[in-house]
Amino acid sequence: MPDVVFPLDSTRRFTDQDKIGHNRWHPDIPPVATLKPGDSFRVHCREWFDGEIHNDDSADDIRNAPLHIVHALSGPFAVEGAKPGDLLIVDILDLGPIPQEDSGPLAGQGWGYTGIFAKTNGGGFLTDQFPDAYKAVWDFSGQKATSRHVPHVSFTGIVHPGLMGTAPSHELLSTWNTREAALIATDPDREPALALPPEPNGAILGSLSGADFDRVAAEAARTAPPRENGGNQDIKNLTKGSRIFYPVFVDGANLSVGDLHFSQGDGEITFCGAIEMGGFIDLRVDLIPGGMETYGVSENAIFMPGNTDPQYSEWLAFSGTSVTLDGEQRYLDSQLAYQRACLHAIDYLTKFGYSPEQAYLLLGAAPIEGRLSGVVDIPNSCATVYLPTAIFDFPVAPTASGPVTIDPGIGAPRSSA
Amino acid sequence: MPDVVFPLDSTRRFTDQDKIGHNRWHPDIPPVATLKPGDSFRVHCREWFDGEIHNDDSADDIRNAPLHIVHALSGPFAVEGAKPGDLLIVDILDLGPIPQEDSGPLAGQGWGYTGIFAKTNGGGFLTDQFPDAYKAVWDFSGQKATSRHVPHVSFTGIVHPGLMGTAPSHELLSTWNTREAALIATDPDREPALALPPEPNGAILGSLSGADFDRVAAEAARTAPPRENGGNQDIKNLTKGSRIFYPVFVDGANLSVGDLHFSQGDGEITFCGAIEMGGFIDLRVDLIPGGMETYGVSENAIFMPGNTDPQYSEWLAFSGTSVTLDGEQRYLDSQLAYQRACLHAIDYLTKFGYSPEQAYLLLGAAPIEGRLSGVVDIPNSCATVYLPTAIFDFPVAPTASGPVTIDPGIGAPRSSA
Amino acid sequence: MPDVVFPLDSTRRFTDQDKIGHNRWHPDIPPVATLKPGDSFRVHCREWFDGEIHNDDSADDIRNAPLHIVHALSGPFAVEGAKPGDLLIVDILDLGPIPQEDSGPLAGQGWGYTGIFAKTNGGGFLTDQFPDAYKAVWDFSGQKATSRHVPHVSFTGIVHPGLMGTAPSHELLSTWNTREAALIATDPDREPALALPPEPNGAILGSLSGADFDRVAAEAARTAPPRENGGNQDIKNLTKGSRIFYPVFVDGANLSVGDLHFSQGDGEITFCGAIEMGGFIDLRVDLIPGGMETYGVSENAIFMPGNTDPQYSEWLAFSGTSVTLDGEQRYLDSQLAYQRACLHAIDYLTKFGYSPEQAYLLLGAAPIEGRLSGVVDIPNSCATVYLPTAIFDFPVAPTASGPVTIDPGIGAPRSSA
Amino acid sequence: MPDVVFPLDSTRRFTDQDKIGHNRWHPDIPPVATLKPGDSFRVHCREWFDGEIHNDDSADDIRNAPLHIVHALSGPFAVEGAKPGDLLIVDILDLGPIPQEDSGPLAGQGWGYTGIFAKTNGGGFLTDQFPDAYKAVWDFSGQKATSRHVPHVSFTGIVHPGLMGTAPSHELLSTWNTREAALIATDPDREPALALPPEPNGAILGSLSGADFDRVAAEAARTAPPRENGGNQDIKNLTKGSRIFYPVFVDGANLSVGDLHFSQGDGEITFCGAIEMGGFIDLRVDLIPGGMETYGVSENAIFMPGNTDPQYSEWLAFSGTSVTLDGEQRYLDSQLAYQRACLHAIDYLTKFGYSPEQAYLLLGAAPIEGRLSGVVDIPNSCATVYLPTAIFDFPVAPTASGPVTIDPGIGAPRSSA
Ligand SMILES: [Zn+2]
Ligand SMILES: [Zn+2]
Ligand SMILES: [Zn+2]
Ligand SMILES: [Zn+2]
Ligand SMILES: [Zn+2]
Ligand SMILES: [Zn+2]
Ligand SMILES: [Zn+2]
Ligand SMILES: [Zn+2]
Repeated sequence: MPDVVFPLDSTRRFTDQDKIGHNRWHPDIPPVATLKPGDSFRVHCREWFDGEIHNDDSADDIRNAPLHIVHALSGPFAVEGAKPGDLLIVDILDLGPIPQEDSGPLAGQGWGYTGIFAKTNGGGFLTDQFPDAYKAVWDFSGQKATSRHVPHVSFTGIVHPGLMGTAPSHELLSTWNTREAALIATDPDREPALALPPEPNGAILGSLSGADFDRVAAEAARTAPPRENGGNQDIKNLTKGSRIFYPVFVDGANLSVGDLHFSQGDGEITFCGAIEMGGFIDLRVDLIPGGMETYGVSENAIFMPGNTDPQYSEWLAFSGTSVTLDGEQRYLDSQLAYQRACLHAIDYLTKFGYSPEQAYLLLGAAPIEGRLSGVVDIPNSCATVYLPTAIFDFPVAPTASGPVTIDPGIGAPRSSA
Repeated sequence: MPDVVFPLDSTRRFTDQDKIGHNRWHPDIPPVATLKPGDSFRVHCREWFDGEIHNDDSADDIRNAPLHIVHALSGPFAVEGAKPGDLLIVDILDLGPIPQEDSGPLAGQGWGYTGIFAKTNGGGFLTDQFPDAYKAVWDFSGQKATSRHVPHVSFTGIVHPGLMGTAPSHELLSTWNTREAALIATDPDREPALALPPEPNGAILGSLSGADFDRVAAEAARTAPPRENGGNQDIKNLTKGSRIFYPVFVDGANLSVGDLHFSQGDGEITFCGAIEMGGFIDLRVDLIPGGMETYGVSENAIFMPGNTDPQYSEWLAFSGTSVTLDGEQRYLDSQLAYQRACLHAIDYLTKFGYSPEQAYLLLGAAPIEGRLSGVVDIPNSCATVYLPTAIFDFPVAPTASGPVTIDPGIGAPRSSA
Repeated sequence: MPDVVFPLDSTRRFTDQDKIGHNRWHPDIPPVATLKPGDSFRVHCREWFDGEIHNDDSADDIRNAPLHIVHALSGPFAVEGAKPGDLLIVDILDLGPIPQEDSGPLAGQGWGYTGIFAKTNGGGFLTDQFPDAYKAVWDFSGQKATSRHVPHVSFTGIVHPGLMGTAPSHELLSTWNTREAALIATDPDREPALALPPEPNGAILGSLSGADFDRVAAEAARTAPPRENGGNQDIKNLTKGSRIFYPVFVDGANLSVGDLHFSQGDGEITFCGAIEMGGFIDLRVDLIPGGMETYGVSENAIFMPGNTDPQYSEWLAFSGTSVTLDGEQRYLDSQLAYQRACLHAIDYLTKFGYSPEQAYLLLGAAPIEGRLSGVVDIPNSCATVYLPTAIFDFPVAPTASGPVTIDPGIGAPRSSA
Repeated sequence: MPDVVFPLDSTRRFTDQDKIGHNRWHPDIPPVATLKPGDSFRVHCREWFDGEIHNDDSADDIRNAPLHIVHALSGPFAVEGAKPGDLLIVDILDLGPIPQEDSGPLAGQGWGYTGIFAKTNGGGFLTDQFPDAYKAVWDFSGQKATSRHVPHVSFTGIVHPGLMGTAPSHELLSTWNTREAALIATDPDREPALALPPEPNGAILGSLSGADFDRVAAEAARTAPPRENGGNQDIKNLTKGSRIFYPVFVDGANLSVGDLHFSQGDGEITFCGAIEMGGFIDLRVDLIPGGMETYGVSENAIFMPGNTDPQYSEWLAFSGTSVTLDGEQRYLDSQLAYQRACLHAIDYLTKFGYSPEQAYLLLGAAPIEGRLSGVVDIPNSCATVYLPTAIFDFPVAPTASGPVTIDPGIGAPRSSA
């Protein structure tokens, strides 16, 4: 096991640890540690809500989740010699739930959760159809996940960090703030919001304090979106064995990581669609000096996924096109097409006895595949979602004899308070 | 080999065959043959442009491609006993290029093509960046494809029909025409068009003639978009061994098929992004009476993909977010995010010596994966595109020593006339 | 489709065709055609017993199968410029059952068969436990196989040639005959035989006649075993897309091919364990001059398998060790260990309602994996056999509730006459 | 993390721990812990030689390895309620090298080793060709392995326990001793030995002492071979997520486990062919009462492998038949055929610059596949060995331009003392 350069004590809040992480992007957040190229190291990660979500049968915690405090990130980690223009190589050596602890009140202690966020508190991919808050708790057994809230399924998790990235430069940060403010300005009162501006309330900024803290808190970008630095990409394929190449925008690169997921379907469709957890991640870093120019990688991360993802060979797939539920034709809108594909899958699963919310939570959490199948056939995009049939303990394909009926159990807890 | 119920003679035009297919959707196009549930049968398919695109080193044919005559479809095939409300089961038993013929002037005779369509004649996914017409010709050797226009790659094709579907009812057809007309009306002079209205010029309608022909030609829907009946879904995973379930909207179901692809990347991004070809497809049909209601499948096709797709285990992946090239922030736009991911991949490949057009054509034709990785992290979607590294005959991953330089050969023919 | 250089008419016997193949190995059998390096060509193949086995519910044909006439081979095909010491590259471009014909009396016309050979007529892997003759007929639908004799399973065939190889030199042929005669001499009356000496009766030798025929028939090696030239390797992974490198022992290389299999498990354990069929194979040949020395490949074929084999992700596996059924300890005998593993799998499947013969036939025909798991742990080898669980239409894993009971149908026809 | 029921301190010998394991099979070795059906628990495992093999550049330790002390096993673990006739379900939840420790003198502390044993001290699969002792040390980085002794390869380990099994009954133990003694008696002075009789010298028997110890030490079976109880099966596919079903022969089942491998090729061909290490394994146990009779599983383990094995899609394969190196024809000997296939692979790899020993060590340690391809084609078995080409950092397939030449580095340390 590599040395732990960012330890977390599960009994203490994220802000009450020996080393303090952060939950905003800013070039002036000081590194918590400095690594050399070639170094391997272990990082503990706190689940993104720092323990506010509980292993119980209520969704009130999701309903009232404090979005201003996310994501609890570990880092930044400086890499000696890294210069703007370099590519930072990050190898994911290993990762998983909180080691040594397989029960307890903190997500990652043997369990994790998936949430459907209320339309008035974050929303989600299908928020118009699912405006209330719901939750599913998943139990871990090795790399397998099961849930009392979504019975009759068991799947191998596709473990990955939802969020990893390098620090933006001042210039890049300014670009972000400007372009996102322009979007917000087009509909400032929308619920859910179009984007999230800097928010000093709840900001955690490592060792910063005083005037520095106030200045940075006012400027720092929220961590919700993926951006040029990687960030909250929620790419389920960044599993063990993956190698990622990040652009470097500041001296030292200042890598941060968090938002660990025990599993997730493509798109993380319930907003908190992954199985969220705290845990650990082992990384190795290296540099390609000048690599941004050499390889034309300046505003995105590129990566080579690992080769130990869970394998499934039989799939049931649903397609969708860019026509709204109200029948309005949109132009090549793959976002909408994927919504329609997912709604089709949800409709289908309800025929077996699941509630729509159970089906929605399942699509968020299981290792489903979401593909951009057709993006040019005017006016309709075609998106497809693939469910591995082996995760169900009943036959899930269509047959002439009709669907079997499962017992949906206690269902997914709901909160519309 | 099953009986051929729709034969094509490669030496004659699509409209000069013993049985005449169609290139529009309409419930009144008479079936060319009637099958029983459980029947297996072979269908010949003409490449979508009926031979207008040639195996040469010019892109003039793409530049001037007659879009009003696509897609040359085989069918409709009626299934005895099929009623509206049923699900039509279609098994893809086998498919491939034109049997018996491995050379000749017709795509499918041992070769196929990928085109980048000019912005003024169809456009494509990246038409703003690639406004001119380009072409790549691919040679088939078994299931492998290579191209003199895109050297240094060789890949196993993921053979599939780009287009298959059932006939719409009059009511459904009316819905299509109404909603698409409404979209067109928002910007009727846009180039490329937002959608394509019914177009009598160039219509092929099977055995219809006279007043019937004229009436149907005026009403019938174009075949470009995927819709509730399946249609031009361009799902690369509908390979041999796949089972598809289509909603039935008219008595007999009236299944049609065409637009065969030797291979295609997710999204068919160059518009004519697949390797287009004529050939054959062997199908078996069956019914689930009342299946649309039983399984909640009424406005989409669902399917179980085959299990003999080409396998690749090492990938190089690129991500994109929903920020335009001009830096404008869009709201959760996965279409845009995938454009940006593809542009990043193209930029990367040019560092090895490919022209941007060669890279674009390759992404359209090779079995690349396109995933909706993040669709909820406001304001940015995250889309990813995965290239199998084993298709390149040079090392394509980033290293500290920088990219090798390949000889791009004669390049992709261009026509900007 | 490449040119057919070796055509077969399904209505005529193998010896009554325009071009005559062979069923013995000898350097003096004249080539039926000469190809150039780089050429692609199609070859028709007759099923190995030239139509003696029928699509019926009797095993009498297996009981009395004329082993002296196998294998009906297509070829030899000479390659221009090939010299002893070269490596012959053979690409399998495509292969399958008899094209154009999906019903008829000849295996390959939409169906194939698996046989358990009687101990007194060939025997097989488990001949002591299964001394009588049995047969299963398999129906093809696309690449899927099902059988009325082994119900409740359906699998994607792993199509391959059981036999392919280059002609031996006179010297190599002499080596074969000498070493095999020495083995036979150790127990000349054994039943089944230890090996098969040259057998003029039933020999087919291409265009040879007269004294040449008689001389060659007396010397030519039987085709049953795999040897230095490849030959009857029965490697199920030589599927479409495979590239094989054969040593060249005579001028022109003189490649022959036959014994096509619709599917087979590792080991072809029932002797005629594959699903035997006639059909076609498309090949491309090339040369590595001097490659035998350059690569150290002089007494075996090496190959790179294709990447479109049927994929399965869930398996049920059985192990066996080198202890006989009578409890005798043998020393590191992987042959025996694999027998025991297969017997364990057969015992297990009978608990669900299959007869032992049905289970045995299934293991021969389905794409099961047979692995040499431990070969050094004195005194026991450990061999394992893996069954893909998705091929069964019932749950086949062990559970606390015990096995379900299937209807075994009419069972596998038996002949003990 | 489940509770540790069998802890090991890396700084102390296996016999100097709080709980003492065992290195022989006997029903009277008392359990070290008792679990309930459904329990999950962690077990620490010592590498099989208890630290006698070092991370250095000498093979003297392999040359003189104390075979009488292997295998250091953790357990036995009793399962409440288990009765003879039951099936014990064992789920492998997780496993890996020694947690918390990534450097140190003990295999499993960030490194492991592969050994070729001398013919006079254990021997191995190819001991006639490789009579001397050799060693390769492998370094772990995440799940990847590399070696200074075998450069130019890097592969994802296929982590598994080489040895796991239930305790034999007195009757079964007696059967083992009787049949193995009979084998030994056929050639008692053979080197290497045909089998290993009970050996009191070096026996470790848990908490037994005094007369009990002496009695059991005299009777207890060695752990080298796999047997009816599972045991040293060295099945590389028993990876994370696997479920194994073991026959139960004694009250409590008395499960033991050890011999962890970071990776191994099929067959573990160098005898100590795996990458040997200490570490941890997390297990869950359950019971199928009466399952041995219900499922016909009485003298073997059956299992369902996990679905996160390292995936490779391009392979280079070698075949072998049952003819000895001296040219003697053997009858259907798959053990010999696999030896010949492995020798062919070794010969091939030496053409690139590896020493034969480097190649041999690589085949033992990397996730190569070994298949029983043909077991019925008298007189020759055909065995095949598949190497994943992506593990090499140079192009390893045959081409007309011949092999590249690699720098073999310092080579594999040898000891012929
Ligand atoms: Zn996230
Ligand atoms: Zn998350
Ligand atoms: Zn299409
Ligand atoms: Zn197309
Ligand atoms: Zn054969
Ligand atoms: Zn055969
Ligand atoms: Zn072992
Ligand atoms: Zn071992």
